[in-house]
Amino acid sequence: MAKFYGIGTGPGDSELVTVKAVNTIKNLDILYTPEAKREGNSLALRIVEPYLPENLKIKQRHFPMNFNDGEKIIAWNRVADEIVEDVREGKNVGFVTLGDPMIYSTYVYIMERLIDKIDVETIPGISSFSNIASNQNFPLVMDKEPLIIVPCTIDEEKIDYALENYSSIVLMKVYKNFKEIVNKLEKNNLLEYSILVSNSSLDNEVVYNNLKEIDLENKISYFSTILVNKENTKVG
Amino acid sequence: MAKFYGIGTGPGDSELVTVKAVNTIKNLDILYTPEAKREGNSLALRIVEPYLPENLKIKQRHFPMNFNDGEKIIAWNRVADEIVEDVREGKNVGFVTLGDPMIYSTYVYIMERLIDKIDVETIPGISSFSNIASNQNFPLVMDKEPLIIVPCTIDEEKIDYALENYSSIVLMKVYKNFKEIVNKLEKNNLLEYSILVSNSSLDNEVVYNNLKEIDLENKISYFSTILVNKENTKVG
Repeated sequence: MAKFYGIGTGPGDSELVTVKAVNTIKNLDILYTPEAKREGNSLALRIVEPYLPENLKIKQRHFPMNFNDGEKIIAWNRVADEIVEDVREGKNVGFVTLGDPMIYSTYVYIMERLIDKIDVETIPGISSFSNIASNQNFPLVMDKEPLIIVPCTIDEEKIDYALENYSSIVLMKVYKNFKEIVNKLEKNNLLEYSILVSNSSLDNEVVYNNLKEIDLENKISYFSTILVNKENTKVG
Repeated sequence: MAKFYGIGTGPGDSELVTVKAVNTIKNLDILYTPEAKREGNSLALRIVEPYLPENLKIKQRHFPMNFNDGEKIIAWNRVADEIVEDVREGKNVGFVTLGDPMIYSTYVYIMERLIDKIDVETIPGISSFSNIASNQNFPLVMDKEPLIIVPCTIDEEKIDYALENYSSIVLMKVYKNFKEIVNKLEKNNLLEYSILVSNSSLDNEVVYNNLKEIDLENKISYFSTILVNKENTKVG
């Protein structure tokens, strides 16, 4: 029976896709790829390129990234309707999404529109924070400690609470208030327990093991993550 | 040059291994596998079995799981010394570990003993919580919410704080104080926002979408995890 597959591509390296994702992609008739910009080149598509079957139909669809909820909802509804139609016509349909589909991914908004109508299978992917930790041989969390993942777009007090009260912290989306975040790390004496990685697993990856050396006046990449582990001075 | 590879196998399904892990395993001379019991059958080894090259030498090594730190340290030192020796003799050596190597894995204790002596590359894996979320089409965390991962072996107040103050919560190691945890969820009106999965991606997987239906007098599996997302009543 025809089915819809939401596929996590991992952080960027084509080798960091799971065997399950590869096997699923090889049996697809249609693959939907999200594009942040019109005519954009989807990173998720580039990641799975080595595994695409010959007669696959690729449908690049525009997902607006602005704050106009109405525009977004119209786009999600339109793509979801199209997917339902394709599956009901007997096609195996895939949708690729960066990282893991259930962790901060707009894939969820598509999934929620499909789930009562067609058969939906979601395939997990490697999260960028997990990839960064392994690449840097940076133990993220051990034993009896919690791990907290904080998008730095939340209220400042919540960031402060996390830095003060947890040992293992992933700070995501640090590009907007980067300077403030580094200052907070310094205030909490956490610079030596932190690493910063931009564009993890991509060609333009940048790693800062020493956050004191960063020029705070420079802009950093949109895909930048800081890992903190108070139980661990940096190895490697 | 000969190298050491720490390889995350994901949660249990052989298809949830990354392409990178498969390609790495195919070029290994020696594979170390951790055994909780002497003469045990390593789950991590079973996961990667389809990908093992013909002339691979497998070294099953015992890792004591008790609370005797001295015994553990002796075991880790011994395995680490053996690995260093193998790599210095020109062998490519792997070490498999369940889930992700940087998230609650004893692999880290081996890695830390190798890192100044030989070349160490760590390959990330799918975490059990990420696999559970995808399998159940359960959105774990979205947008501006933090995600907190809590091993239920920590102080009760910390569990309470997480349940009261965060929207997206992963409760790991719930087997010991399972009854108390479910009671806490009920007290916080979180049962309808929670799912429980035991033995994720294994043959004996059990899923509870309705936590009210669980017999609290029964023991549950060691590998049991609860996902909570207050923003999301259960879909699927």
